[in-house]
Amino acid sequence: MTPAITTTVQALQWTGTHLAVLDQRLLPEQLIYNNYNDAIGVTDAITTMQVRGAPAIGIAATYGVALAVIQRHQQNPKQWQQKVAEDIALLASSRPTAVNLFWALAQMTALLAQPLSDPITATITLAKKIHSDDIAANKAMGELGADLLTGAKGVMTHCNAGALATGGYGTALGVIRSICQRQAINIYMGETRPWLQGARLTAWELAQEGIPATLIADSAAAWLMKSGAIEWIVVGADRITARGDVANKIGTYSLAVLAKQYGVKLMVVAPTSTIDWSIEKGDEIDIEQRPDHELLSSYYQHEGSLINAWNPVFDVTPAELITAIVTERGVVMNPTLLGLQGIKNETF
Amino acid sequence: MTPAITTTVQALQWTGTHLAVLDQRLLPEQLIYNNYNDAIGVTDAITTMQVRGAPAIGIAATYGVALAVIQRHQQNPKQWQQKVAEDIALLASSRPTAVNLFWALAQMTALLAQPLSDPITATITLAKKIHSDDIAANKAMGELGADLLTGAKGVMTHCNAGALATGGYGTALGVIRSICQRQAINIYMGETRPWLQGARLTAWELAQEGIPATLIADSAAAWLMKSGAIEWIVVGADRITARGDVANKIGTYSLAVLAKQYGVKLMVVAPTSTIDWSIEKGDEIDIEQRPDHELLSSYYQHEGSLINAWNPVFDVTPAELITAIVTERGVVMNPTLLGLQGIKNETF
Repeated sequence: MTPAITTTVQALQWTGTHLAVLDQRLLPEQLIYNNYNDAIGVTDAITTMQVRGAPAIGIAATYGVALAVIQRHQQNPKQWQQKVAEDIALLASSRPTAVNLFWALAQMTALLAQPLSDPITATITLAKKIHSDDIAANKAMGELGADLLTGAKGVMTHCNAGALATGGYGTALGVIRSICQRQAINIYMGETRPWLQGARLTAWELAQEGIPATLIADSAAAWLMKSGAIEWIVVGADRITARGDVANKIGTYSLAVLAKQYGVKLMVVAPTSTIDWSIEKGDEIDIEQRPDHELLSSYYQHEGSLINAWNPVFDVTPAELITAIVTERGVVMNPTLLGLQGIKNETF
Repeated sequence: MTPAITTTVQALQWTGTHLAVLDQRLLPEQLIYNNYNDAIGVTDAITTMQVRGAPAIGIAATYGVALAVIQRHQQNPKQWQQKVAEDIALLASSRPTAVNLFWALAQMTALLAQPLSDPITATITLAKKIHSDDIAANKAMGELGADLLTGAKGVMTHCNAGALATGGYGTALGVIRSICQRQAINIYMGETRPWLQGARLTAWELAQEGIPATLIADSAAAWLMKSGAIEWIVVGADRITARGDVANKIGTYSLAVLAKQYGVKLMVVAPTSTIDWSIEKGDEIDIEQRPDHELLSSYYQHEGSLINAWNPVFDVTPAELITAIVTERGVVMNPTLLGLQGIKNETF
C-alpha cells in the first residue's frame, strides 16, 4: 500500500479533474492555490516558479501529462496521442536543470507507448503513484539522513528542499524534520537569494512544523561555520550525475567549498529520480540562467541601463566536496562513480 | 592646498551651519538629504544607516563634533566643554566596528584639549580638513590600486566602498574608477545582503559615473570565480588590525576563502585612519550585530515566532588571505605585522 498524500504542506493537490498548485511566490504572506486543467497551465506554473524544487516539478509534470490526456482524449478520442506528445514536449521545455522533470515525463511517455484500454485512468494512476512514491522516498531518506546527524549540535540548510519542493515531507528538510523528532538541534537556513526560498519557504515550513530556526544572510555562512555552530550542511539536489556531482541552488557550491575548509560535512538528500545516469560530469549539466529582473531593481531595468545582472540559479558541486548522498535506496558516502553504481538497480 | 570637496557623489555636505546627510536607505529610487544641526541628529543618522561606510562615518562624526561645539558654545560660552564631551561620547556609541569613527573623534578631542581662541572655527576647520584629506587619500589609493589591476579582465567588489562610503571618490570603488579610466575591465558586484549596498549603492554610483557593471547574488561569487571571469576582488575595510586582519562587510571573509581556492587575488583598500594600531588580532574587533528585522520578513516578527535571525553585519578576514592592503601611504603586499609597520609613520 502506498502512503496517503496528506503529509505536511502540500505544494500540489490533485483533485481528480485539475491540479491545484500552491503559488509559492506569495508565501509566507499568502497561501493561495491556482487551479490548472491543461499542460499549458502546468508548464506556466513551473516556468514562473509557482511550483519549484526538482521532485515537485517532476510530480507537477506527471499531473500535467494526466491533464493533457484527459483534455486531448475528450477533444478527439481517436487521435489524441500526437497532441499529448506535443504537450509533453511543452512540459519538458519548462525548466532545464532539474532532471526529475525529464525522468517523470519519460515514465509517462513509456506508459503511453503501451496499448491502454483506459489511458485517462492509467495516467492518473501513474501520476498519483509517482507522487506517493516520492513522499515514501522522502520519509525513508529522512530517517537515513537523521542517522548521520545523530549527536550534531547544529545544521544549516540552503534553499528549500522541503515539503514544498517535493511530493511532501521534503528531502533535506525531511532529514531535518526527522532529526528534530529525535533530538534537540539548532537549525540555520540561508536566505537563498534572489528568490529567498530559505527566508520565505523553509522558514515558513519549519514554523508550520513547530521547529525553531535561525535565518542568516547567504554570505554569513562562512562566519557561521568558523564559529563552530554547525557540523553539517544538508541540501537537496536538482540533478546528480553518475559520479556524484550535484547541481543545486546557486550558493550550494560556495557552501561546499567553505564547508571543506572548516571540516563541516555536506549531505545531499535526493531521491534516485534526481540522478541522471546518462552523464558523468557536472559540467555537462545545463545550468538555467533566469532573467535579470529577478535580481535587479526595476530602477535599472530600462533601455540603455549600464547595470545588468548575471543570474545563474544553480551551480554544480563536485563529488569530492560531498560527504554523503542520501537516497531512498541507501546512503552513498564519499560519492564516486563506483559508489553510486551500488544504488543503480533494476527499476526504471 | 587641500583638494575641493566636490568630486563624484556626496554622502555628506557641510553648509557652514548644518550637515546635509544623503539618506542612503532610499537610494537608488530617491535622492534625499536630511539636515542635522546637532550631535544627537548626526548620531541618529549614523545608527540608522542614513550614512554608512567607515570613512564617511568618521567624517560625519567630525562634523557632529563641530555642530556640538557651535550649539554648546552658543548655549553657554563659558562652560560648553563638558556638554561637548558628552556629545562626543554619544557619537562614539553610534556604531561599534568601524575604527575611523573613534580615530576621527580622537582627533577632535585632541584639538579641543588645546587652548583655542575660536573653538568653533577651529573644529569646523579640522572637520573640513579630515573630509578633504579623505578625498585626497582616496584618489591616491585609486591610482595605487589601479596599478595592481593593470591588465586584469575582470574584478568583483562587495558592499559599497565608494564615494557614498567616504568623503568622496571611494576606496575600493575609487580603485575601480581609476582602472576604468585606464583600460576596459568587467566589473561585478555582489548584492550584499541584507542591506543591498552592492545592488543599491554601488550599482547607482557606477551608473552615475558611466561605468557598466554586472550584479550577482552574493552566493554566486564562487561560481563566478570558477568561471575565470575575475582576477581580483577589491573591497574596503571597516577596521584593520596592526597585523592586517580586516573587518569588513559580512561576506568578505567568505569571498576571501573562496578567492584563495581559485587563485583570485584580494585587495583591501582603506585609508590609514582605518588601521587600529592598538590591536593585533582580528578576534579583538567588536563585530556589530544588527536587528533581526533587517533580515527577517515582518511575517516572522511577532511574539512567540519560531523564526529568528543571526545578523552580524561584519566579519573578519585574516591577513593570510589578503594579497594587498592599499593605503594612501602605500601598498602592503601579503600583509603582516612587520609589513604594516612600514606605513605607520609619524602622523596622528
